[in-house]
Amino acid sequence: MVRALILGATGYTGMELIRILFAHPEARVVGGTSRNWAGKTAAEVFPFIPGEQDFALVSLEEQLRDPDADMAFLALPHGESASAVRPLLEAGLKVVDLSADSRLSDPQVYAKWYGPHKDPEILGRAVYGLPEIHREAIRKADLVANPGCYPTSVILAAGPLMDCGYVDSACPIVDSKSGISGAGRGAKPTTSFCEAGEGFKPYGVVGHRHIPEMEQELSYLAGREIKVRFTPHLIPVSRGMVSTVYMPLIAQVAGDDLRDLYMERYRSEPFIRVLPRGTYPDTVQVRGSNQCHVSVEVDERTGWVVAISAIDNLTKGASGLAVQNMNVMMGLEETAGLQGLPLCP
Amino acid sequence: MVRALILGATGYTGMELIRILFAHPEARVVGGTSRNWAGKTAAEVFPFIPGEQDFALVSLEEQLRDPDADMAFLALPHGESASAVRPLLEAGLKVVDLSADSRLSDPQVYAKWYGPHKDPEILGRAVYGLPEIHREAIRKADLVANPGCYPTSVILAAGPLMDCGYVDSACPIVDSKSGISGAGRGAKPTTSFCEAGEGFKPYGVVGHRHIPEMEQELSYLAGREIKVRFTPHLIPVSRGMVSTVYMPLIAQVAGDDLRDLYMERYRSEPFIRVLPRGTYPDTVQVRGSNQCHVSVEVDERTGWVVAISAIDNLTKGASGLAVQNMNVMMGLEETAGLQGLPLCP
Amino acid sequence: MVRALILGATGYTGMELIRILFAHPEARVVGGTSRNWAGKTAAEVFPFIPGEQDFALVSLEEQLRDPDADMAFLALPHGESASAVRPLLEAGLKVVDLSADSRLSDPQVYAKWYGPHKDPEILGRAVYGLPEIHREAIRKADLVANPGCYPTSVILAAGPLMDCGYVDSACPIVDSKSGISGAGRGAKPTTSFCEAGEGFKPYGVVGHRHIPEMEQELSYLAGREIKVRFTPHLIPVSRGMVSTVYMPLIAQVAGDDLRDLYMERYRSEPFIRVLPRGTYPDTVQVRGSNQCHVSVEVDERTGWVVAISAIDNLTKGASGLAVQNMNVMMGLEETAGLQGLPLCP
Amino acid sequence: MVRALILGATGYTGMELIRILFAHPEARVVGGTSRNWAGKTAAEVFPFIPGEQDFALVSLEEQLRDPDADMAFLALPHGESASAVRPLLEAGLKVVDLSADSRLSDPQVYAKWYGPHKDPEILGRAVYGLPEIHREAIRKADLVANPGCYPTSVILAAGPLMDCGYVDSACPIVDSKSGISGAGRGAKPTTSFCEAGEGFKPYGVVGHRHIPEMEQELSYLAGREIKVRFTPHLIPVSRGMVSTVYMPLIAQVAGDDLRDLYMERYRSEPFIRVLPRGTYPDTVQVRGSNQCHVSVEVDERTGWVVAISAIDNLTKGASGLAVQNMNVMMGLEETAGLQGLPLCP
Repeated sequence: MVRALILGATGYTGMELIRILFAHPEARVVGGTSRNWAGKTAAEVFPFIPGEQDFALVSLEEQLRDPDADMAFLALPHGESASAVRPLLEAGLKVVDLSADSRLSDPQVYAKWYGPHKDPEILGRAVYGLPEIHREAIRKADLVANPGCYPTSVILAAGPLMDCGYVDSACPIVDSKSGISGAGRGAKPTTSFCEAGEGFKPYGVVGHRHIPEMEQELSYLAGREIKVRFTPHLIPVSRGMVSTVYMPLIAQVAGDDLRDLYMERYRSEPFIRVLPRGTYPDTVQVRGSNQCHVSVEVDERTGWVVAISAIDNLTKGASGLAVQNMNVMMGLEETAGLQGLPLCP
Repeated sequence: MVRALILGATGYTGMELIRILFAHPEARVVGGTSRNWAGKTAAEVFPFIPGEQDFALVSLEEQLRDPDADMAFLALPHGESASAVRPLLEAGLKVVDLSADSRLSDPQVYAKWYGPHKDPEILGRAVYGLPEIHREAIRKADLVANPGCYPTSVILAAGPLMDCGYVDSACPIVDSKSGISGAGRGAKPTTSFCEAGEGFKPYGVVGHRHIPEMEQELSYLAGREIKVRFTPHLIPVSRGMVSTVYMPLIAQVAGDDLRDLYMERYRSEPFIRVLPRGTYPDTVQVRGSNQCHVSVEVDERTGWVVAISAIDNLTKGASGLAVQNMNVMMGLEETAGLQGLPLCP
Repeated sequence: MVRALILGATGYTGMELIRILFAHPEARVVGGTSRNWAGKTAAEVFPFIPGEQDFALVSLEEQLRDPDADMAFLALPHGESASAVRPLLEAGLKVVDLSADSRLSDPQVYAKWYGPHKDPEILGRAVYGLPEIHREAIRKADLVANPGCYPTSVILAAGPLMDCGYVDSACPIVDSKSGISGAGRGAKPTTSFCEAGEGFKPYGVVGHRHIPEMEQELSYLAGREIKVRFTPHLIPVSRGMVSTVYMPLIAQVAGDDLRDLYMERYRSEPFIRVLPRGTYPDTVQVRGSNQCHVSVEVDERTGWVVAISAIDNLTKGASGLAVQNMNVMMGLEETAGLQGLPLCP
Repeated sequence: MVRALILGATGYTGMELIRILFAHPEARVVGGTSRNWAGKTAAEVFPFIPGEQDFALVSLEEQLRDPDADMAFLALPHGESASAVRPLLEAGLKVVDLSADSRLSDPQVYAKWYGPHKDPEILGRAVYGLPEIHREAIRKADLVANPGCYPTSVILAAGPLMDCGYVDSACPIVDSKSGISGAGRGAKPTTSFCEAGEGFKPYGVVGHRHIPEMEQELSYLAGREIKVRFTPHLIPVSRGMVSTVYMPLIAQVAGDDLRDLYMERYRSEPFIRVLPRGTYPDTVQVRGSNQCHVSVEVDERTGWVVAISAIDNLTKGASGLAVQNMNVMMGLEETAGLQGLPLCP
């Protein structure tokens, strides 16, 4: 039984970790931190947590002083994670960092997009936690950088095309749409029901911080430097993310053949479903599950390929993927605790 | 006082015409048709209609037999409109056709996307009803083809770029998102609350029927043949549409200069607002109004321009634009009845 | 032309006042206050406001120093309004106070529910602003207390029954449901999209502060002291409020006869529609309008009467009613600027 | 391993049974029926179903001819279930009937509310499937009538009060609110996104068919005949139900004491949580789980008690409860497959 800590247990990704780990046959949450609720127990904050699985919430400082567990999930704000990684590793825990602090392998790229890193050494030590690409490295890692939700959705949608020879993958046009929970639990006017509900809008149209991650991983897959033209939008749903990716055709290929290429690539991936032609990914069909649905189409009339994915941004886009990474790191069944079907409707 | 008929008064665009015309200082609805409710009055179907402005609902056949009015709005399904246009014109009414039946000037293009037209002559007679492009022709027209909601949002977003010299406009990548009301009032599982709510998905990824309209008008603006790579998606809002349009840069230009170009182009357009840099169109800020909000950004890092618009698909995307067209055709103030602010929140 | 000030112009009721007054034929907003945006203009904050109707936002203190206008709307937090009333009246303005500060005529009742009043004299001077009850007094008033949204919906639903003789009106059971905008614009976790959306919950189950208002006015109508058993709930809609009111039958009466009683009572009320038997009030059918829809049913099997109303909590429940009060106070047509149909869908 | 059939597998309660049973350690779906999709497999209809747990969909007639399984869930429309019960029982299956066809023990009461029953004998044979009341009888039953969602929420909210001596339980006032999925999967205008979203309305204000069930069970608990004054409303959420129940005090009691009474009554119930004073049930905190949250408050000022519950209408209100019944009938752990935490947010 893996004894797990959740650092940042009362934000949305922390809450989702609680939900998933409570159904996990081989893991158990033994402690957590919360800025607002330290001193309470999880069940005092969330009435739906049953007493027999309750755990104490303490401050981050207290937790780091003596972290008695096998695994720590860092569901902390960017910047705070960086300082927590080292004490946890030194105490012998394995770490999945859900923040952006460990994701970019190149400290200079990190500095360009986020400013100077507090502990740049960990950038070299972390493995990028997308098992669909880096499964073997994750297996041996003690520090895994859990991908951002946008990068996961984009890499899974576009990955099979990067070196397929049919498209020019140098600069994918990526139009992504995220549920509101992606903005976190802190109350802001832009995520209030009255202003986000019945709304739909782009934001960060130029220069969103998830871009360097996408470029790092897509370049890895393509074997050459890739740039990404990325636009995020907010959808009025709690959970869900769709990425629509456009790349120009450079060789003739039939839609069925591209779909076969995806089927082949994802044949043994337990969480990815390549949809039948003419069926498209829908957030409500992945809600609350760790599944990623993907489609690909060729538009011969204009000469472009369109690849589309849907995930739940809190599950496959964050906490479900984090547990998947834990499973791989700990030598457990990769799907343990993650096989739940989506809540649809 | 313009006496107007609404053919198809109990669908969503018909209902929106009722709402707008009831607040119009120079027009009044004098009759309407309804397949399901013929024999009732509008106030019997919609309890919010005040008795003093009530009108009878009759069958389409009955209405066409003796259409005593100045203006007819055709809010009918595609295909049904085509047969109604001629009797109305012959009875001396001016006509705004909200269906697709009059929008494509080339009968061969029409046939390719929709099949053979029932009365192809009207294709030549109709003026494409986007006053921001064809105001003078609309002024003299007796038949105006009201644009589709997607084309309006795309043409207003991308129009100023088509011949600007800074971008290659040959094949805009258009990623559009529409509120559920765009699918019409007929009950379908895909537009049910439980399956559309908390959902977000693309549909018609290749070959949506609004493409030829976009191509017709963008080609007109560009002065050369344009193809459009178009993907529609459904947003879980009743009303609202955002189009995000991508075109590659071919000459250096600053973001502020492109915005100035939009400001200049739309300077005297009463319904278009070019947003300040860094602010982006949001459906909730146009809901229920005839406004169109647009933004444009240059992404120098990747060499692409992004143009974005938001409209209410039932107002500027359908019935509000139809009333704007009526105003122009009838020599009324173009903004009459259309100045209402959006319902925000 | 009435020149109006909006004190608190950037909260939800302030924004709704802007929307309504911009379509008003006899009034014009000439200034407003905002804690967060003082120094900007309204159009800088809200891009949908057209330049020709823009106005300056200043601090409350600055506005009160020299309020040059005919009418002031106080859309301020409870407590702040109390201090603003007197300087405005002394400067010769008429005042509609949308806060709770002027609503309770008895200072002791006020003190019991809200604590000591800052300027208790105004409690005696204010007229309770529900024209359906106090039209004549409002006509002569210079200070009108705009009712709370819950009280308006409850009084309009239950009012005709209070002295009808068929029910025991001593303690109505009131189960009310409000859209999220009723909680105001300040960001709180409980009104965030992710926690309010897909949620529905009661709050303030015992002792909500709108109770004394309901009791004051229902007692007035009944001619004896009434207590109200009131439970508010939050609905995941931006706008809308439904109140379901239960009172025990004490004499036999047919459903049709009770409906006739409502029809008779509301015959000349321009904003109230008594729905046909078997049809019930729905928030989406009043959204954005000043209408109130009401139904009444008799349940002979159990011996209870059920009265139901629906309003838009921001319009008839706040800012629309405030403009209706202005119209009455200023001798304008009572419906001026308020005849817009609901945004449905 | 219990081999289960789902008759009516592609409606909302059928889909929810699939979701729950797929995570059940001791049960497995071996077949299902579907009017629209007979001839396909479940995974062809729902892309999120993994191949290894796929099953065939056949017609009801075909399934009934040779039902090879241990247990059948009837997720069929009312009326259709009645004819399916007997062949299944005769083939040796145990049956949980989610329709209304088996719920009323008195055939005359059934006939009064639903018309003549097709097979009235089964009314006497069925056990009402609320384990919180009838656990022992369910253990021995071969036919269990799964309660309606409204009755479950009302009985769990009000049950502990029925014979407590503090309230007059003769005629509870029940104000209930249900998510849209309660109306089923068939497309109707009233459940379309555009008309149900941003809407809230009562329906069936007098004489809803769930009343006799509530009265049957509350009378059983009270030990005398109870009538229920019941009003259902539709909330714009997919899933979720809140019932607010009012009963007059007849003896003095403190709020804490009533809460203790609930705590005592529900002490060993695995799915019911009595919330702390001042905290109230919220649909988003039970979404997708089998939990029921309850609160109770005393309003001394008016002399009424308010009891409130929240459930997910598809889970504890239908399919989760059905699996709980299966667990009891089959001698499994009652919580097997049902311990998942809610999807919150």
